[in-house]
Amino acid sequence: MTIPAHRRAFGEHLRALRQANGHASQEAFAHHVGLDRTYISGLERGARNPTLDVIVKLARGLDVSPAEMLATIDA
Amino acid sequence: MTIPAHRRAFGEHLRALRQANGHASQEAFAHHVGLDRTYISGLERGARNPTLDVIVKLARGLDVSPAEMLATIDA
Repeated sequence: MTIPAHRRAFGEHLRALRQANGHASQEAFAHHVGLDRTYISGLERGARNPTLDVIVKLARGLDVSPAEMLATIDA
Repeated sequence: MTIPAHRRAFGEHLRALRQANGHASQEAFAHHVGLDRTYISGLERGARNPTLDVIVKLARGLDVSPAEMLATIDA
């Protein structure tokens, strides 16, 4: 299954924000935001299609704006 | 059912972007982006929880960046 470019970009940016935010492991970050580690892993690989509710939850866990979560996705 | 603030903000901004983009009716815009009119109506009322794929599709239909779609949602 080819991964759409916007999901790949979202996942790579999520990983970069997570690491920059001091959450070295997906496990710790998953616990911090109340999501499952395997779901975080899937998001970062571009294998999942998160909803607005999830994007806002991730943004709050990373202390960034929801818009920042999509900042690297081209129009 | 109380509508979460971030879904309300998303819906209001979607409506404003749609109207600013010249799509006077939800019907015309729904056709333009290949989505159902009732789904667009639900999004604008904050009654739906769109996925990343849908947010990107809406952004392209409105000629704005995906991040702009979330610009009015507070962190």
